[in-house]
Amino acid sequence: MDLKYFIESQQVDHLLLYEIFELADRIRQRPFAFAESLKGKVLATLFYEPSTRTRLSFESAMLKLGGQVVSTENAKEFSSAVKGESIEDTARIVSAYADAIVIRHYLDGAAKKAAEASSVPVINAGDGKGQHPTQALLDVYTIYREFGSLCNLKIALVGDLASGRTVRSLCYLLGKVGKNIEFIFVSPQHLKMGQDIKDYLTKHEISFREEEDLSKVLPIADVIYMTRIQKERMSLEEYEQAKGKYVLNMENLGLVRAGARIMHPLPHVEELDFPFDVEQKDLRIAYFREAANGLYVRMALLQMMLKERE
Amino acid sequence: MDLKYFIESQQVDHLLLYEIFELADRIRQRPFAFAESLKGKVLATLFYEPSTRTRLSFESAMLKLGGQVVSTENAKEFSSAVKGESIEDTARIVSAYADAIVIRHYLDGAAKKAAEASSVPVINAGDGKGQHPTQALLDVYTIYREFGSLCNLKIALVGDLASGRTVRSLCYLLGKVGKNIEFIFVSPQHLKMGQDIKDYLTKHEISFREEEDLSKVLPIADVIYMTRIQKERMSLEEYEQAKGKYVLNMENLGLVRAGARIMHPLPHVEELDFPFDVEQKDLRIAYFREAANGLYVRMALLQMMLKERE
Amino acid sequence: MDLKYFIESQQVDHLLLYEIFELADRIRQRPFAFAESLKGKVLATLFYEPSTRTRLSFESAMLKLGGQVVSTENAKEFSSAVKGESIEDTARIVSAYADAIVIRHYLDGAAKKAAEASSVPVINAGDGKGQHPTQALLDVYTIYREFGSLCNLKIALVGDLASGRTVRSLCYLLGKVGKNIEFIFVSPQHLKMGQDIKDYLTKHEISFREEEDLSKVLPIADVIYMTRIQKERMSLEEYEQAKGKYVLNMENLGLVRAGARIMHPLPHVEELDFPFDVEQKDLRIAYFREAANGLYVRMALLQMMLKERE
Repeated sequence: MDLKYFIESQQVDHLLLYEIFELADRIRQRPFAFAESLKGKVLATLFYEPSTRTRLSFESAMLKLGGQVVSTENAKEFSSAVKGESIEDTARIVSAYADAIVIRHYLDGAAKKAAEASSVPVINAGDGKGQHPTQALLDVYTIYREFGSLCNLKIALVGDLASGRTVRSLCYLLGKVGKNIEFIFVSPQHLKMGQDIKDYLTKHEISFREEEDLSKVLPIADVIYMTRIQKERMSLEEYEQAKGKYVLNMENLGLVRAGARIMHPLPHVEELDFPFDVEQKDLRIAYFREAANGLYVRMALLQMMLKERE
Repeated sequence: MDLKYFIESQQVDHLLLYEIFELADRIRQRPFAFAESLKGKVLATLFYEPSTRTRLSFESAMLKLGGQVVSTENAKEFSSAVKGESIEDTARIVSAYADAIVIRHYLDGAAKKAAEASSVPVINAGDGKGQHPTQALLDVYTIYREFGSLCNLKIALVGDLASGRTVRSLCYLLGKVGKNIEFIFVSPQHLKMGQDIKDYLTKHEISFREEEDLSKVLPIADVIYMTRIQKERMSLEEYEQAKGKYVLNMENLGLVRAGARIMHPLPHVEELDFPFDVEQKDLRIAYFREAANGLYVRMALLQMMLKERE
Repeated sequence: MDLKYFIESQQVDHLLLYEIFELADRIRQRPFAFAESLKGKVLATLFYEPSTRTRLSFESAMLKLGGQVVSTENAKEFSSAVKGESIEDTARIVSAYADAIVIRHYLDGAAKKAAEASSVPVINAGDGKGQHPTQALLDVYTIYREFGSLCNLKIALVGDLASGRTVRSLCYLLGKVGKNIEFIFVSPQHLKMGQDIKDYLTKHEISFREEEDLSKVLPIADVIYMTRIQKERMSLEEYEQAKGKYVLNMENLGLVRAGARIMHPLPHVEELDFPFDVEQKDLRIAYFREAANGLYVRMALLQMMLKERE
């Protein structure tokens, strides 16, 4: 498999998906076997939008494979972007210094532009309202690990489905690699899942429906994928209407099936409200395991994209 | 010794203190023996407040032990904190990516919260007006190296004793591990040492007194520990009253005992005013040696907390 | 050769220049022979002004030599500078943590001050309107590689010659190491090359002349060194007068000699306007090769300054 860039979750098919999962599992079991794997290689992380979690997990992944990292924490303010340089030129030049680039950008399509100009592999770590394909990958990996397969699942996506790029990437990916998946979109009227995703699912004969009442969904969903209302991507009025509408807490946790899993791309705010000890003990709460999975999925991806190109 | 987190300087007793000092000395003498010591380990430095000095010295310490570092220079602005994530959640997730966390935060108690949620060792690199225990450790290490013991010393703490967390941490630690120590608190009326520290010293039968006139203290003190008036932690009026009140320069250096030492946690502004060549040659001026000691103390601490947990 | 600090391009003479170039060529050909060269060494990059390109290329250079990096992306805002610390003190303290320092600063002369206070090698990565000597080095290296020698060349420097430190450093260096060089300064009236450079060239008997019309220069120049109008270093009125005055595009590319080279320190904005495929294919366009050369020149420099001091 030759993955030269990873921009959209649709790029991943069955074969590639299980190749990544199998490698992620192997790295998790025998990390020392991979500790020098990317020795001498340098990864550049270019973040035009804040994201400690994603950036640190990519950087740690690279370091734990024996590679090195050069990094810019807020490229928007501190880089040549302020001098008016195009994303293509930045990518072209950075690809002379680094063996791979991870980019997060505030504009849709920025990662694709970077990939086209770069001479080294480029990974999209989130582009505007576009995609966040490694998040989708770790989400699907989490579902796979928690349920043992990607078949016969009811997946409720809850919250801000209009601006959330993680739910978009997840639909694309799970729609493609899952079997007999049903999506239930739970959102306020003004933050509904976009028509492009619905068309995509229809085209691929994946069933979905919309539901406004969360309490109707909790007893039947296998996966409850909560999301944060993204204040920074809407008007204050829209935010006030959506805020607090969908919350999981000790009250409605009782409605959730025994074998179900509560997921969240994190960071969360008020939409999740559990005490620490419940988060530690209740197996249905999967979001910290989900976050931890990110490290292994990203290690697998970097290993594949960098090692195989030697 | 199993130090799972290091939040307050009171955690350190005699035994642990000399274990750290002995290790710091060994690392200083034979750095190459430790050059691969933490190979494969990743340290995360999360700084919610600016501090080049402390951050770079921790990061360099980790790298010189063969470890690696992921870092965020201004977590307050650039991280998930802006999206409303709790410090506990951040710590929990970062502890999935890193083998230890160093945290600086603008709120008292933040490091403790992080330590409670983290699954890996956490070191407090300063929390609001709380503590800065590794600074206390390197200060006491400096006194130990300069005087050969921690007995029979008159320690003058000078300047902003109300908001200075380094002087607080130093009192706690030296009060605990020193023998026959006398503190002299030299500060403006409105920036006096807090009652909690005084109570602590009284309880542990450590003598202290307050003095407003620096010139009375210079001829008798063994250690003159100067501090910066922390403009960013008080009103402008308070700052104007305190600024320039206590200054060490060529004029009053003559009052300082021959064997005494002038220390400062740095950065300094007008409270120290010596020409470069005097700073280089006069043995009484110890603050650059003090800063350099920070590297070895932090190497020793990381080595103990990470190596012994294997 | 013992290069303890590198502040101005005039420091480099013939002998040293070719030593650097020869080492850069060797590193380029056999990177693996140098992959552990600076193992155990730590470089500190202190950037008081934004520059992703220069910072990342220095950091990547250090990492690819087996060394490590501690870094501050915006020292101006996030470091002890906000607390009022002098650049000398910062350099003195950082030199206790790191084996070399790369500094970029917004004030002329800052790198020199840092070098005087530091106990480890210091490299100037740009200081205000002062110099940017490693840029000059990579520019001359590029000319050397593209033309095979530094003799008998007409060099047109185009654009903002008043505030551009790269053109200043280039004149100093090429003036010193080149043979039979002629400079042609092409700039708006209000952004002319400074008198100090003209005096320097006159003193060293290097010919130069001024020309306002770019189209007269294109047919005769061997090197057309374009620069960006540095908006951030002039008034808005001055900027408006200069903007768009000198542009290279498909229209006037036809005027450029077959063997000539178009260079630019990058980032560029409207002064270069070529389609991607032309930039890829037309050999006369050298600015991406120039940027890539920066890695090897900086590797050579770090190798010489750090390795030879052991």
